Amino acid sequence: MKAAVLTVGTEILFGSIVNTNAVFISKQLQELGLDVMYHMTVGDNSTRLKEMLAELYKDCDLVITTGGLGPTEDDLTKETIAEFFGTENRLREEELEVLKARFKVIGREMSENNLKQAYFPVGAVTLPNPNGTAPGFRLEKDGRIIIAMPGPPRETEPMFVDHVRPYLLSLQNSHLYYRFIKTYDIGESDLETRLLPLIDGQTDPSFATYCQPNESYLRIASKRATEEEAKAAVEDAIVKVRELIGDHIYSEDGEELSDMVLRILLEKGISISSTESMTGGLFAATVCSYPGISAVFDRSIVTYSNNAKMQELGVKAETLDKYTAVSEEVAFEMAEGLYKKTGSDICISVTGYAGPDGENVGLYYVGLCCKGRTTVKRHKARPMGRQYIRNHAVREMFLDIYKNCIK
Amino acid sequence: MKAAVLTVGTEILFGSIVNTNAVFISKQLQELGLDVMYHMTVGDNSTRLKEMLAELYKDCDLVITTGGLGPTEDDLTKETIAEFFGTENRLREEELEVLKARFKVIGREMSENNLKQAYFPVGAVTLPNPNGTAPGFRLEKDGRIIIAMPGPPRETEPMFVDHVRPYLLSLQNSHLYYRFIKTYDIGESDLETRLLPLIDGQTDPSFATYCQPNESYLRIASKRATEEEAKAAVEDAIVKVRELIGDHIYSEDGEELSDMVLRILLEKGISISSTESMTGGLFAATVCSYPGISAVFDRSIVTYSNNAKMQELGVKAETLDKYTAVSEEVAFEMAEGLYKKTGSDICISVTGYAGPDGENVGLYYVGLCCKGRTTVKRHKARPMGRQYIRNHAVREMFLDIYKNCIK
Repeated sequence: MKAAVLTVGTEILFGSIVNTNAVFISKQLQELGLDVMYHMTVGDNSTRLKEMLAELYKDCDLVITTGGLGPTEDDLTKETIAEFFGTENRLREEELEVLKARFKVIGREMSENNLKQAYFPVGAVTLPNPNGTAPGFRLEKDGRIIIAMPGPPRETEPMFVDHVRPYLLSLQNSHLYYRFIKTYDIGESDLETRLLPLIDGQTDPSFATYCQPNESYLRIASKRATEEEAKAAVEDAIVKVRELIGDHIYSEDGEELSDMVLRILLEKGISISSTESMTGGLFAATVCSYPGISAVFDRSIVTYSNNAKMQELGVKAETLDKYTAVSEEVAFEMAEGLYKKTGSDICISVTGYAGPDGENVGLYYVGLCCKGRTTVKRHKARPMGRQYIRNHAVREMFLDIYKNCIK
Repeated sequence: MKAAVLTVGTEILFGSIVNTNAVFISKQLQELGLDVMYHMTVGDNSTRLKEMLAELYKDCDLVITTGGLGPTEDDLTKETIAEFFGTENRLREEELEVLKARFKVIGREMSENNLKQAYFPVGAVTLPNPNGTAPGFRLEKDGRIIIAMPGPPRETEPMFVDHVRPYLLSLQNSHLYYRFIKTYDIGESDLETRLLPLIDGQTDPSFATYCQPNESYLRIASKRATEEEAKAAVEDAIVKVRELIGDHIYSEDGEELSDMVLRILLEKGISISSTESMTGGLFAATVCSYPGISAVFDRSIVTYSNNAKMQELGVKAETLDKYTAVSEEVAFEMAEGLYKKTGSDICISVTGYAGPDGENVGLYYVGLCCKGRTTVKRHKARPMGRQYIRNHAVREMFLDIYKNCIK
C-alpha cells in the first residue's frame, strides 16, 4: 500500500514548528511495511488542501493528515475532506456527549466553536482522543483511504498507536514482527560494518540501523504469512546478531536505557540520589519522568554554585581552589558527600563544562558511589551545544549506573 | 512571490531524518517576506519529482530544492530539473577545476562519479559550496525560478545565507515587518474572540494566532512598499492590540517567558534558588539551559522523598502528617526552608501530583519567597500526562516569578 503524510498548518510553513508528526508517522508506516511516497505540508487553506489531496491520490491509496481539527475558523481539514470525498459533516450525538464530558473533566466552559468538533463526514469512523478535544477519524471511499488526526504530537502519537496502527494491520494480509536491538559504545557505521555479513543481500528478515544522538540501534523485521513464522525468523536473526555485537547490546526489545535502569532499580528496590552541576537537574528530571520512581529516588541536589557544593555536600574549599569545580576530585567529593547525607545505595554526581564558551567545553566527570564505594569517570562530549552536551552526560550517567551497579 | 520547499530524499520519507532544511529555509523566506505555500518531500525518483515540480509551479513562482546533488546514482535532482525545464546538463570547466582543487584539499581520490558534480543545466548560475563537493545552482526560465541546494544542513544553510538570500532580496519590491506578541493566562480561542474586531476582514497588517502547550501568541505582519511603512503599520496595530489584551501580554518581541524572566534576573543581579518535588529538576534544568545563569542561580534541591523535604528544608513531620506532602503548608515550608538555607532573593518551591494515577492528578502548589516574604499559589493542570503537568508547572513557576517579583 502506498501512503502519503499530509500536514496541515500555516505555522509549519512559517518554520515556527518542526514537523515531528511526519517523522513519527513515517517511522510507524515503515514498520508496518507501507511505502511512504510523499510528505506534504499545506497551510490552512481549503483550495490548496483539496488540490494536494487530488495530487496525492494519483499515486497513493492512503493519505494520513494531521492538523486542522481544532475549533477555530482556521481549522478546516474536516470540512475540506468531506467536500473532497463528496459528502458532508453531520453532528454525532455520541461524540457531542464525549466532548461535553471532557470539558466537564477539565473544568472549562465549552464554547459554541467547540460544537464543530462533534461533526464528522458521513461514513467516517471516529478515532478517540483522550489527550485533547479533537477526535480523529478515518474514511474509506472509492478505494481511497483517509485518516485525519489532530496536530499536537502528544495527541497524534497515542492516537496512531491505539487506533490507526491496529486498523492498518487489519488491512494487511501478511504479518509483521520486529524487534529493536539497542546498543551502547558503538557508532552506526561500526555497527553496520560488524553486521555486514548478516545484512548483505538479506531481504527477510530485514536489518536497518538507526542513529539517534548518543545511540545506535538496530531493527530486525520479518513479514511472513503467519505471525509465528515472522517471529521465528527474527528470533533466529537475533541469535546471530548476539554473536557479532553481543558485548554492545543492552536491550533486545527496544527499551530506552534510562527506562531500563530505572525499572531495574524499582524492581530490586535499589535507592538512588543524585547531585548535578553541569546537567542542572536534567538527570533528576529524567529519573522523575518514570512513574512510581518515588519509591526509590530520594533526592537530587543541583549544586550550581561553589557555595552550594560546599554547603550541601561538604566539598572542600581547598579542593575547589586546587582542582577547580570541574575535576575528578570535586566529582568524587560530591558523590561521597551525597552518600554521607542520604545513604542511598547509588549516589551519582556530575560536574563539567556545557559551554557555550571555553576551551574544555564538553568535558565532564561522573562520580558514582555504589553501596559506599566511589569511582569517577572522565567523559568528553563533542562541543555541539549546551543541550547536546547535557543530554550526553545524562545518557552516560545512566550507562555508568548500568555498567557498574546493575549489569 | 509564492514559494515552495521541495526536499528530495528517501531517508526523510523513512522518518530517519528530521527535515530541518524545510524549517530553516521557511524561516528565511518568511523573513524575506515571501509566502511559503508548500513543503513537499519526494523520494529519489525522477518521475515523481517531475510530477511534483509541475504541481508546485501551478501556484508558485519559486521552488527551492534540497538534496539529490551528490555523486551517486540515487542523486538525480539536477538531471530531473534539466529535463523539466527542457534543457540539458553540460560540463562546466571552471566548476571541474574547483572540484579537483577541493578533492586535493581534503586528500581524497576523485572518482569518475564525482565528474557529475561539474555538470549543470544550460543557463544555470552555480552556487559555491565551501562545505561540501556539490555546488548548488539557480535557474530562471519562463517566469519560473528554481534554486537547487545540497541536502546536508551544514552545506545548505551557509549556501542559503551567502548566495540565495542576496539573490532573493534583489528580486523583491515589497518589504515585510512582523512581531510576535506573547501572552499569558489566555487561551487561543479567547484570544481570537477578543481580537475579533481587529482581525475580522483585515488583510494588512495580518493577524495570526498560535497555540503551543500552555501559551497562545499572536503574529502581526505587514508587507508594504518600504520597511518603514510596514513597521509603522505593525506598531499601530500593536497599540490597538494592547487596548484589547494588554493585561495578558508579557512580550511584544517574541521572547520566551522563561528566557525573559532569566534575562531580567541576570540583568538585575537577582539571585534565585529552587526546590522541586513534582517537577523533579525540570525547573532547574530550564534555568540552567540559559547561558551565563550561574551568575545568579545558586541551587535547586529536588526533594522527592518526605525524608529529603525534612532533612534538606526543615519541613516539619507534623505538617507532612497533617496536610500531606502536596499541600499549601508544605509548599510554604519548602520555600521558607530554602530561603533560610540559601538567602537567595527568590526562593521558589513546588509540590504536586503528576500522576499517572490518583484523584488529584494535576493539582500542585507553588511557594514563592521574594526577598523573605513567602506566598503560596494553588494551581491545577489538566490531567494530560506527567510530562504535560510538569511542563505546566514549570511555566507557571516562571509566570509566578514574573508577576510577583519582576513585573
